[in-house]
Amino acid sequence: MSNSKSSGGMWDGRFTESTDAFVQQFTASVEFDQQLYPYDIQGSVAHARMLEKVGILTASEADIIIGGLQQILKDIQSGTFVWDVALEDVHMNIESRLTHLIGDVGKKLHTARSRNDQVATDIRLYLRSAVDEVQKELLRLAQGIVALAEQEAETLMPGFTHLQIAQPISFGHHLLAWYEMLKRDFDRLNDCRKRIVVLPLGAAAMAGTTFPIDREFTCRQLNFDHPANNSLDAVSDRDFAIEFTACASIMMMHLSRMAEEMVVWSSTAFDFIELPDRFCTGSSIMPQKKNPDVPELVRGKTGRVYGHLMALLTLMKSQPLAYNKDNQEDKEPLFDTVKTVLDCVRAFADMVPNIEAKRDSMLKAARTGYSTATDLADYLVRKGLPFRDAHEKVGQIVAHGIENQLMLDEIPLEALRSFSTLISADIFDCLTVQGSVGSRHHLGGTAIPQVKHQVEMAKAFLLVQLREVHGRS
Amino acid sequence: MSNSKSSGGMWDGRFTESTDAFVQQFTASVEFDQQLYPYDIQGSVAHARMLEKVGILTASEADIIIGGLQQILKDIQSGTFVWDVALEDVHMNIESRLTHLIGDVGKKLHTARSRNDQVATDIRLYLRSAVDEVQKELLRLAQGIVALAEQEAETLMPGFTHLQIAQPISFGHHLLAWYEMLKRDFDRLNDCRKRIVVLPLGAAAMAGTTFPIDREFTCRQLNFDHPANNSLDAVSDRDFAIEFTACASIMMMHLSRMAEEMVVWSSTAFDFIELPDRFCTGSSIMPQKKNPDVPELVRGKTGRVYGHLMALLTLMKSQPLAYNKDNQEDKEPLFDTVKTVLDCVRAFADMVPNIEAKRDSMLKAARTGYSTATDLADYLVRKGLPFRDAHEKVGQIVAHGIENQLMLDEIPLEALRSFSTLISADIFDCLTVQGSVGSRHHLGGTAIPQVKHQVEMAKAFLLVQLREVHGRS
Amino acid sequence: MSNSKSSGGMWDGRFTESTDAFVQQFTASVEFDQQLYPYDIQGSVAHARMLEKVGILTASEADIIIGGLQQILKDIQSGTFVWDVALEDVHMNIESRLTHLIGDVGKKLHTARSRNDQVATDIRLYLRSAVDEVQKELLRLAQGIVALAEQEAETLMPGFTHLQIAQPISFGHHLLAWYEMLKRDFDRLNDCRKRIVVLPLGAAAMAGTTFPIDREFTCRQLNFDHPANNSLDAVSDRDFAIEFTACASIMMMHLSRMAEEMVVWSSTAFDFIELPDRFCTGSSIMPQKKNPDVPELVRGKTGRVYGHLMALLTLMKSQPLAYNKDNQEDKEPLFDTVKTVLDCVRAFADMVPNIEAKRDSMLKAARTGYSTATDLADYLVRKGLPFRDAHEKVGQIVAHGIENQLMLDEIPLEALRSFSTLISADIFDCLTVQGSVGSRHHLGGTAIPQVKHQVEMAKAFLLVQLREVHGRS
Amino acid sequence: MSNSKSSGGMWDGRFTESTDAFVQQFTASVEFDQQLYPYDIQGSVAHARMLEKVGILTASEADIIIGGLQQILKDIQSGTFVWDVALEDVHMNIESRLTHLIGDVGKKLHTARSRNDQVATDIRLYLRSAVDEVQKELLRLAQGIVALAEQEAETLMPGFTHLQIAQPISFGHHLLAWYEMLKRDFDRLNDCRKRIVVLPLGAAAMAGTTFPIDREFTCRQLNFDHPANNSLDAVSDRDFAIEFTACASIMMMHLSRMAEEMVVWSSTAFDFIELPDRFCTGSSIMPQKKNPDVPELVRGKTGRVYGHLMALLTLMKSQPLAYNKDNQEDKEPLFDTVKTVLDCVRAFADMVPNIEAKRDSMLKAARTGYSTATDLADYLVRKGLPFRDAHEKVGQIVAHGIENQLMLDEIPLEALRSFSTLISADIFDCLTVQGSVGSRHHLGGTAIPQVKHQVEMAKAFLLVQLREVHGRS
Repeated sequence: MSNSKSSGGMWDGRFTESTDAFVQQFTASVEFDQQLYPYDIQGSVAHARMLEKVGILTASEADIIIGGLQQILKDIQSGTFVWDVALEDVHMNIESRLTHLIGDVGKKLHTARSRNDQVATDIRLYLRSAVDEVQKELLRLAQGIVALAEQEAETLMPGFTHLQIAQPISFGHHLLAWYEMLKRDFDRLNDCRKRIVVLPLGAAAMAGTTFPIDREFTCRQLNFDHPANNSLDAVSDRDFAIEFTACASIMMMHLSRMAEEMVVWSSTAFDFIELPDRFCTGSSIMPQKKNPDVPELVRGKTGRVYGHLMALLTLMKSQPLAYNKDNQEDKEPLFDTVKTVLDCVRAFADMVPNIEAKRDSMLKAARTGYSTATDLADYLVRKGLPFRDAHEKVGQIVAHGIENQLMLDEIPLEALRSFSTLISADIFDCLTVQGSVGSRHHLGGTAIPQVKHQVEMAKAFLLVQLREVHGRS
Repeated sequence: MSNSKSSGGMWDGRFTESTDAFVQQFTASVEFDQQLYPYDIQGSVAHARMLEKVGILTASEADIIIGGLQQILKDIQSGTFVWDVALEDVHMNIESRLTHLIGDVGKKLHTARSRNDQVATDIRLYLRSAVDEVQKELLRLAQGIVALAEQEAETLMPGFTHLQIAQPISFGHHLLAWYEMLKRDFDRLNDCRKRIVVLPLGAAAMAGTTFPIDREFTCRQLNFDHPANNSLDAVSDRDFAIEFTACASIMMMHLSRMAEEMVVWSSTAFDFIELPDRFCTGSSIMPQKKNPDVPELVRGKTGRVYGHLMALLTLMKSQPLAYNKDNQEDKEPLFDTVKTVLDCVRAFADMVPNIEAKRDSMLKAARTGYSTATDLADYLVRKGLPFRDAHEKVGQIVAHGIENQLMLDEIPLEALRSFSTLISADIFDCLTVQGSVGSRHHLGGTAIPQVKHQVEMAKAFLLVQLREVHGRS
Repeated sequence: MSNSKSSGGMWDGRFTESTDAFVQQFTASVEFDQQLYPYDIQGSVAHARMLEKVGILTASEADIIIGGLQQILKDIQSGTFVWDVALEDVHMNIESRLTHLIGDVGKKLHTARSRNDQVATDIRLYLRSAVDEVQKELLRLAQGIVALAEQEAETLMPGFTHLQIAQPISFGHHLLAWYEMLKRDFDRLNDCRKRIVVLPLGAAAMAGTTFPIDREFTCRQLNFDHPANNSLDAVSDRDFAIEFTACASIMMMHLSRMAEEMVVWSSTAFDFIELPDRFCTGSSIMPQKKNPDVPELVRGKTGRVYGHLMALLTLMKSQPLAYNKDNQEDKEPLFDTVKTVLDCVRAFADMVPNIEAKRDSMLKAARTGYSTATDLADYLVRKGLPFRDAHEKVGQIVAHGIENQLMLDEIPLEALRSFSTLISADIFDCLTVQGSVGSRHHLGGTAIPQVKHQVEMAKAFLLVQLREVHGRS
Repeated sequence: MSNSKSSGGMWDGRFTESTDAFVQQFTASVEFDQQLYPYDIQGSVAHARMLEKVGILTASEADIIIGGLQQILKDIQSGTFVWDVALEDVHMNIESRLTHLIGDVGKKLHTARSRNDQVATDIRLYLRSAVDEVQKELLRLAQGIVALAEQEAETLMPGFTHLQIAQPISFGHHLLAWYEMLKRDFDRLNDCRKRIVVLPLGAAAMAGTTFPIDREFTCRQLNFDHPANNSLDAVSDRDFAIEFTACASIMMMHLSRMAEEMVVWSSTAFDFIELPDRFCTGSSIMPQKKNPDVPELVRGKTGRVYGHLMALLTLMKSQPLAYNKDNQEDKEPLFDTVKTVLDCVRAFADMVPNIEAKRDSMLKAARTGYSTATDLADYLVRKGLPFRDAHEKVGQIVAHGIENQLMLDEIPLEALRSFSTLISADIFDCLTVQGSVGSRHHLGGTAIPQVKHQVEMAKAFLLVQLREVHGRS
């Protein structure tokens, strides 16, 4: 891709020396940009129709060109198309084949455009499609999580801060925290998409073209939002690729947090969940092992996407306008980011709904670690003690419990009252994990009815979005 | 900040050993998080009013607390407040001072909240304000660029690809490419802002609280969009900080591209622009030097913001929910990102409108480098040659020109016709830089009327946005 | 710092306009580069002595200059020196003060040098000293780990892969894995240091100087290895800062792995270790919490150093030679990297030796999870079964155990023999954790005598290195 | 790769469900790790010989196994080997084929090792070989640069700081700055290599093995330096990959700086060099273009390697010991880093020696920009003026020159003397570019004899290193 190519007689009128063979290989992009072919053809078809509309091509010339392009599309899909590295990139390979197929009229297609605006258009078409795919899988994963949250709304587990047991929560509530992350990812992609569907075509090399083009017409054909307002910016802008990769990085960060929890929870020590065998693998040496490979691999792939973000940001730093060959390096990080997030979201969408919660084990853990100490402090506040004083008092009670190896609800009432006479028998309602969870009954809290309410809200949101995304094309 | 503190009797009820002195210093955050004080107080005032509304505080208690907070605000602003590292963070410093000022009622303020939801709220309040500031400066810079573009709409210069002269353009057109970048930055910040104004308060440590709080009430008071839907997510989410830093990274990338061009253009060899003396510095050893320090420094600061983005992404990777001490590290990269982009945008907003275009030098350069060769090819296409053939023909003519040291418009008509008899005397209208620029007369093209049209569109957009941003608070 | 400054009459002979106030602040570096003062003075003293040696200064001039510099050093150390942002950087502040103190002879100090070679020298002096400090703390941490490894050599725990129990190991053996990481960090710093101690002074602005300087003399005075061979490279090279930050990143990665393990091990579920109270903090809301803040914070600071590495790499990318103002941005990431790694290594050096191993809990965990399954497979191999067949056989036995809720050593001999008649009564020696650990008796294996041998090797290595590092200055 | 595989009966003894098809594809690594095959086989041969030496294999078994492995090597090289994704990775593919070829004896090869130590060994063997290749190409590029520096030692050009003309220098001197960068890269790779040649084999899964292995024997066979001292560290350590990628990042940074200069120098405005046609390409639309694609592409590839570094650092952050599936992600970034730096260094090694210096154009530029102003200041110092006063005086003379459009050596003596009567007729010797360059005659300075001396030093160094590197295997 780009503003340059290496031979085939397409740009070498002024050159006196042919390209070095290693250089040809080194500078060619066809090995990776060939995957842009459906978008390159889609853009060329729209361009040809526009050239026809403004009278640069006759209707019959346009038809011949478009027929040729459709033939090439079929040939590529069926695997009979031969890619030639000497033709450098996807654009030149297709154009060269077109002229071979339909003769000199093929040479008219590149009128009023350049590879600079052509490739920018191709990537935007590609990325719009990729965003749609990622969003579909995100919704599928979100649905799986919400379904599991609904099923496990009444399952109690310890909530953690600092990986220390903090307070009892509903497992469904925890899963809905995952859902909230993904919802933001989905929204961010919607915003990113707005900046993808802007049409570069017509910018030509960088200054526009001397032909009387109709960019609005091309724009409508490709279902883009509007043509780019400035020709230099149109060919030099790669913000959309960086913005997508930033969205993808945050998404991978979310998946890595989910992955970490799945790995920790499926350790023998925690024993909170069981991953289905078909998402795990064994060991070549230790016959007893069942390893949580899928979450680990997803966690590991996070760095890959972060790295692509850094690659793209570095690439664009300090580039003078308009187009530089450096930009050929925009594609591989972007393509691999798309593939990676699609694979990871897909793997989780398959796996997460099949997680088995080990409810007894979770409940047992929730009962340890003095997880209802805050409830005791809140009780004292309701009895009139300022919060800070209540907090200190409970700290002493916990120390007493640790020393005597008693859980909070195992400490006798008299012992509790020796710390504060505000405590009476009703305290034991607060100290159970059920009581603790049930009392956090406000918007966003972990009380079961609140969890069920959030499940309903999430299901409604997902239904609407699914309809929107699947109705796009 | 965070869920933990080191002494002052605020959380150490269960501890048997006091904190190591170095550890106290190492884990404290007050040295950098103290800048959150206006937001911490703003959040506490809203929280106190909510506690009053739901009956946890009496009206008079709330008034006393809020009075105390306002006194503390004044003390900090006037520099009389003494920050204590033993109180670890901004929250504990203020709360401790509050209790000192107003007595035991101050201990009630922390009812129904935790430092986990408190700090998340503080950062969001801070960042909302920072986004507004950055957007204001962005608009000011954009206005300066557009004004310069208007003034230089008819100034001609060479456009570049690969830093090689490509085609003549309007300098105003080039400047509008800068404007388009900044416009996207502005839009992206609007999108980012939507995900900042979500209220964590009420999530408490991570599970919600046992008190009958009214989160919608708090939300309205802080002018946030809605309360966070899930308490675990509310305290663990730092997406907004990463998303802002990603937006800032793209913005710095744009500034670095502008900077690079200013540095290249003010070199002796290019000599396209003159930067005002007051934005340049000299050399301690070479008395003749005038260095473009401001653009170079802005270019250099790009890496700094990229680094902060990487720091935040790395920070959040694989963190199990809900809150971990790691998160204390979210503030410094964010604060420095805000400061850096504000400074850089401000410096450019001051400088760019004062760039002096060296019009003669630009025009002279535009006439070199066979910059109108594409126009000659387009001419041949209009005469009936397919584009690819025209391209090759012109390549030969350029080679002829180089060999004979003739610019395109200096090659005699007969010589031109020896390459193609399609050429006639009207060719010379195409070969001037004025003719070339004038003929790119379509949406986004470099023809002067198009440039002026885009200037008008930009001015209108900026007026609307300025009104919106300044009307926010 | 750099080749430029903003006023004070030091470089503005050719300027017609004074520096903008905001620009002065924006471009000044004195706020952060003032910490280079001891190195700046050290370098100036060496430079003055060299100027004296070659006859540019008289002995008495050199003495006066050096006396003035020593006075300034004292003033800075005692806090009476007034830094002036109008003098831009540490160099100009000191030189200006020098001339104020000793009169016109002070103006001769900058003969035959430039701020470009001066600042490069300062940073190298600073970084050499920083490397020495980091290495000392690394050795202290390594000693603490080795001492703990010695103490816990016979403590058995489960080894993990995929956070699943894999095979029993010695806790001392695990700790020695930490030691090996740090040893590589130490060695890498030694290699990095070789490229720090190269002298830029004499390169002047970038081309050398017209004065008859003696760079070898200056080099010996500063105890550097050799003068830089090329003047352009001398002022433009920042490899040493990047290399150090890369070493620091790997070091932080190691500390983050240790931190992760400490956090996991001190969870209620694992319960393998107890961190001393003085390295932990409590919660503002949950009175029972004891949070592993120090390891969490160290883990969180990893991203910070990674970010600085990315900042420096981005900074230097594509910079044309020799010196550009961008480079002013090299200092803050480097300074913060030094501070961060020093603090983190120091915190661990204080904390790690005081970790309390909960030996019973570790041993109990080692007995679960079929951790000796590999031993059973190896037993079958020794009895003649090919390894792959043995592995499969043991997999079936483990499945049998899971189904019947029996540990391997609880399955009756007859049951075992129903899977393979190669098994006889001596199998039970292999299936204990003690037997398993003891049988891995080769270089690098976990058998106790091997662990003790590695402890001895480590202690000897550390003794030698400590002597070397402390003997440096 | 790793500790896990998906079927083929190799580890699924305890599993009740077969692997999901998408998961199998998602978790398999054979598509990219197959390139490790020569190293995997090399490691297996050494392992088999060791098993023979200690009596676990008979001599004839070892011979059969090694014969089988050699057959597989040939099959892979000839393209007849069929890779199967169901066998997950390179190790299982080769082992499975081995057993197919030679029968049950093949199942004995995996005795006393695990995929964890096997893959770590493979990567180290691979990377040792890659380092050697990169070093060879680095030396070739260095030789090309030094040869060009020798040829252009007397070519004068302006030296730049801030891309402003600073002082005249020798073009050869500038090229030697490039050489110095590469020399450091070479040295850093030597240091990195020391930490690569450490043998993990024998660590097995993570704890060592129960078989009586001889790791020193295996080590000698593979020509490694020593066996890893700790089995957990041996399988979890990926420092060497990160360290190599950090070295590669610095190397790419250097190449990007060279690239930037080549791009700027070949612009029409600078016109300092001509790149050979065969390293450039043309434009699909602008027939006159000759684009410096190779340097631009190298500059663009810098971000790619930085990204891989960030990916690997992120990957390893916070991983608990010993081995996790995340580590499968270590290979692609490393492989692509090796390929990228090899390609880039090779491209420059081909191109740089063929750069044509446009000497007249360089000299002309060196005469502009008051490049000898420092020489005038130094002259005044030699006449007795303190440097700071001389600097200011020359600033005024430059301002006078700019105002009157006179170069320094065009200002009449009387006019010069009106600024300082210390100036006399001998000043004009200093003001020529030849005089300026000639007077910087000290180690590292730009005087021609110094440049030639450095060329000789470089040639000698390169000869020694070439011999060493090529003599390694």
